[in-house]
Amino acid sequence: MAINIKNFLNVKNKLSKMRDFQDLGHIEGISISAITADLYGDGRDDITLFYFSEGAKYASVYTKSKIVSENIKFNLQLKNKLVKALFINTKNANTFTGKQGFESIRELSKYLSKELTLRASRAEVGTNDVVKPNQILFASTGVIGETYPVEKIKNKIPDLVASLKTVQNKYVWVKAASAIKTTDTIPKLAFEECKIGEKNVKIYGIAKGSGMIAPNMATMLAFIFTDADLSANILKSLLKRNIDSTFNAITVDGDTSTNDMLTFFSTGKVNNSNIENILDPRLINFEKKLHNVMLNLSLQIIKDGEGAKKLLKINISKAQNYQSARKIAFSIANSPLIKTAIAGEDPNWGRVIMAIGKSGENVNVKKLNIKFGELSIIKNGELNSEYDEKIVQEYMEWDSIEINVEMNIGEGNYIAYTCDFTKDYIDINTDYRT
Amino acid sequence: MAINIKNFLNVKNKLSKMRDFQDLGHIEGISISAITADLYGDGRDDITLFYFSEGAKYASVYTKSKIVSENIKFNLQLKNKLVKALFINTKNANTFTGKQGFESIRELSKYLSKELTLRASRAEVGTNDVVKPNQILFASTGVIGETYPVEKIKNKIPDLVASLKTVQNKYVWVKAASAIKTTDTIPKLAFEECKIGEKNVKIYGIAKGSGMIAPNMATMLAFIFTDADLSANILKSLLKRNIDSTFNAITVDGDTSTNDMLTFFSTGKVNNSNIENILDPRLINFEKKLHNVMLNLSLQIIKDGEGAKKLLKINISKAQNYQSARKIAFSIANSPLIKTAIAGEDPNWGRVIMAIGKSGENVNVKKLNIKFGELSIIKNGELNSEYDEKIVQEYMEWDSIEINVEMNIGEGNYIAYTCDFTKDYIDINTDYRT
Repeated sequence: MAINIKNFLNVKNKLSKMRDFQDLGHIEGISISAITADLYGDGRDDITLFYFSEGAKYASVYTKSKIVSENIKFNLQLKNKLVKALFINTKNANTFTGKQGFESIRELSKYLSKELTLRASRAEVGTNDVVKPNQILFASTGVIGETYPVEKIKNKIPDLVASLKTVQNKYVWVKAASAIKTTDTIPKLAFEECKIGEKNVKIYGIAKGSGMIAPNMATMLAFIFTDADLSANILKSLLKRNIDSTFNAITVDGDTSTNDMLTFFSTGKVNNSNIENILDPRLINFEKKLHNVMLNLSLQIIKDGEGAKKLLKINISKAQNYQSARKIAFSIANSPLIKTAIAGEDPNWGRVIMAIGKSGENVNVKKLNIKFGELSIIKNGELNSEYDEKIVQEYMEWDSIEINVEMNIGEGNYIAYTCDFTKDYIDINTDYRT
Repeated sequence: MAINIKNFLNVKNKLSKMRDFQDLGHIEGISISAITADLYGDGRDDITLFYFSEGAKYASVYTKSKIVSENIKFNLQLKNKLVKALFINTKNANTFTGKQGFESIRELSKYLSKELTLRASRAEVGTNDVVKPNQILFASTGVIGETYPVEKIKNKIPDLVASLKTVQNKYVWVKAASAIKTTDTIPKLAFEECKIGEKNVKIYGIAKGSGMIAPNMATMLAFIFTDADLSANILKSLLKRNIDSTFNAITVDGDTSTNDMLTFFSTGKVNNSNIENILDPRLINFEKKLHNVMLNLSLQIIKDGEGAKKLLKINISKAQNYQSARKIAFSIANSPLIKTAIAGEDPNWGRVIMAIGKSGENVNVKKLNIKFGELSIIKNGELNSEYDEKIVQEYMEWDSIEINVEMNIGEGNYIAYTCDFTKDYIDINTDYRT
């Protein structure tokens, strides 16, 4: 039994590529600014502004938690199909802040609208764009239950608006992606380019995550921007069709934040012909590229999971149905025992069996196949007679591990991604606040 | 705001009491033996036998995992209402061992029946009891997927049977409770005595757990014995009525074993008058005492959770309904972020909010109260103005922490128990096999 080295290298290469500095450039219709309001007390950038001078169509997906942050409540009551700006702050989640939190966002929306409108009226800009308070989206991430620092932020709004860069380069994007971080160790960026019809369009994305989801500190935020001209409905459909296999397929510790937010913006600056239907064949390639951006950002979040040393891909195939495959995948992905075994580079397939069993989903043991990478361990429900723990042991030393489970009882497939569970996770999460 | 020290001391005392050496004595109708078959290679006791000379009525509850061990499959096909023996081995789970595993149990059951019958026929015993192979229950705990060591065990069966102690004292019980351990650091025993009608009866229990449930090593096994005369149906009902608030209320890491087994035996040696109905008032006190034994064993398992330093009691009251309360309790109890915060002695109530939110259960934030012990933190959905983090911080240093959540939207109550999540858990589970 030979190891398929090529497969491993592919996985490794994919990861290395992800960690590369991403060469994002300019997207027409967006201005960006990121500065410090000194919320952390150490001068790091912590407030970020995206300004869409001619507006952007958009679609959002928010956390499924029954308790949501005040900024999300604010966003949910906006009725405009076009937004002019997105404001993001870190350090404070604006959750469990009640009236103070909600009113703070109202106040910031008014102040931002005033400052942005003022800027547009100045001679050197001269667009005379008018920004209304209900054309601004808000994202927050940080500690739950602390008074929202509205004054500190407000004092910096003029500087933030004054710092808007109309022409971006990779440094502007990295500055923004860095300013939205909390416990993240690296900024997360991804981009793709493709054609819609004859026109070149861009898809850029930034995200933050890390302790997926350390609710007193981290949250999953992701913002994707395109210069293609797509309606809010098309944007929404595209998110819905691709989120389950990307941002919803990842888990670091099974916890969910009160602040999770994913928004997809279309500046419409590229005049692709009107696309009215999600099934329009001109969207096929665009959707593929969008999926790449979403998966790329998702995997960057996992790779940067608190204390994570290894990426773990859990591939369930031929389960009874899609939901069953998904449940088995997450039963494995959320098991502390599997995640600690991966950290210990232990090919502990017994724990995989345990996690399949505890999922409660139908299993026909006699049909079950389990592989670590390409290495067959369980074949038709029995330990593969050619199983050589030493070879599998070697595989476990790679920085990206695949667990492949073939249920062979149906048509349901699902891939989940997670990271290993190391002592550093415990360190980060026991020592954070104190 | 003063700390209610008495409450804390109560919790502390309860724990200390639990850790005391339990003074179990003799139960009529049971003989016990525990010796080594050297399955670990270090000579520790690893096989245990309970023999009921005149049989025992019994009821069992097994793991809900879709993949179960071969010994459980064997037990499930027994049709007898009376068993004569219970055999337990540690080190090998007899799971994913297929035919070899199942046939091994068949072989052991025959051999045990022969040896036990032979013993009963000897002059010094002279009961002439006949034990049939289908009158023996089997429990296993240990590594999944390794060939079941049937020969090693079989060779020791004569010694095991020869070592049966007909009169027990606490040392016999502790020896048995120690022999069923895997990664447990202490043997787990509990007992109660009470009356049924005019007759004194005893309820004795032993258990093992630890890495609740580290499937390659640990499993929850619990065996409860009474000399009261109760039918299998009554025993079953008593287990069903009490398991949800005891063994099913505890979690160390949310994982579930393929081998979990709880069996309740009645030797019937005390001639209490016939009890035919679970609602018989003579059972009220007995059921309370049984609940104590089950809860006591459950909490000992939690306190001995892998790497655990603190016991965590999560008390959800007035949720929409019972199921909702249970789901919220486990959402908190299984959150790695909460368990690491407890390890760090961090009164991180934001993570409690997160876990309530992610449970998906109905919440009316404005009615929500959260207390750590008696210390009010959230009152009617807002941070209690008298909240003093320093005092709560002191509370977090205790070895037993209560998180009290009042939902105030219904009648559903549930209490779950767990332990903190320390670096030692990661150590134990990354280093175990390698």
